[in-house]
Amino acid sequence: MGQVVSNMSMSLDGFIEDADGSVDQLFEWYTAGPVATESANVDLPWHQSEEDAEYVQGSVDDLGALIAGRRLFDIANGWNGAHPTGLPVFVVTHRVPTSQEWNHPDAPFTFVTDGVASAIAQAKAAAGDKDVVIASPNIAQQALDAGLLDVITVDLVPYLLGSGTPYFEKLASSPVRLDNPVIRPGNRATHLSYRVLR
Amino acid sequence: MGQVVSNMSMSLDGFIEDADGSVDQLFEWYTAGPVATESANVDLPWHQSEEDAEYVQGSVDDLGALIAGRRLFDIANGWNGAHPTGLPVFVVTHRVPTSQEWNHPDAPFTFVTDGVASAIAQAKAAAGDKDVVIASPNIAQQALDAGLLDVITVDLVPYLLGSGTPYFEKLASSPVRLDNPVIRPGNRATHLSYRVLR
Repeated sequence: MGQVVSNMSMSLDGFIEDADGSVDQLFEWYTAGPVATESANVDLPWHQSEEDAEYVQGSVDDLGALIAGRRLFDIANGWNGAHPTGLPVFVVTHRVPTSQEWNHPDAPFTFVTDGVASAIAQAKAAAGDKDVVIASPNIAQQALDAGLLDVITVDLVPYLLGSGTPYFEKLASSPVRLDNPVIRPGNRATHLSYRVLR
Repeated sequence: MGQVVSNMSMSLDGFIEDADGSVDQLFEWYTAGPVATESANVDLPWHQSEEDAEYVQGSVDDLGALIAGRRLFDIANGWNGAHPTGLPVFVVTHRVPTSQEWNHPDAPFTFVTDGVASAIAQAKAAAGDKDVVIASPNIAQQALDAGLLDVITVDLVPYLLGSGTPYFEKLASSPVRLDNPVIRPGNRATHLSYRVLR
């Protein structure tokens, strides 16, 4: 059975974007080595350390579906028509976009208007025995609060940003106890994978 | 030449104590294994995993002097007369305590009233070629802001606390770029040591 996993690049002081909304420092590890890897942005091809490239490839191999918030979908401009992994994306939103581009039956996007639990159920059905990855902090938080998040993955970045958006901003109940992490060192990120204990 | 190192146990979401001032979850790793180690508190003897005990012993071996804030000194009640490491402690404070207990010439405490830079200079002189460790977040922050902090050490604890006191609360300038960490896995803490890049 696949797992529901959240994933974010986070500064050592806990922020997933700085006060200006920039992720320049947090995404440094995507271009901090010689190994070319598939990128979500053709203008910014990824080239990573061997360790980071292996980590990304391993995550992609385990992946069956993605869940994104509407904000991420809009920032990424719908990944120009399809997510680079080629996988189905479930977009949690209050309003389904009217553009035919995103909304026709062959588009790899499903717009979910009845909440995070519904998006997770649909994504798990699509993913089969592979993982569902949540790539928006707000959605990850709601999944955690609802007891639907199995694993928290952090690409821990060697920067102090001082301020910005926290990964988990307002927990419904705390403390949340996690297991010891699986640790994968990289260049400009340390990859930590924590099972949520319930 | 020794280094100026800050050290704190921190939750994955960046807090060094919870909203109630408790460190119960953050200090779980001090008693999460079979190996007895020297503790700062006789009522709470430490017993750690082999990895954690080795990490603590290694840190103590490198240590020449400590810097604490007045709040930590008071909470610890002056470690009942001497820090368990047996090393000199430089306490940054606005007022020198009047109690003869702490203030007589043989007490292993030096009360520093002229600021963090002065405390660091005095502690470095006492430490010789060993490290100076700063164990109070407020002092660590001032040392970082003044360009006097060489290494940030984090015992990263697998909990989300949701709220509390951050390790680095208000940076004078950001971002602060750190080197890739030295990583030592433990039980209920992952020990990360980051060199501050300038």
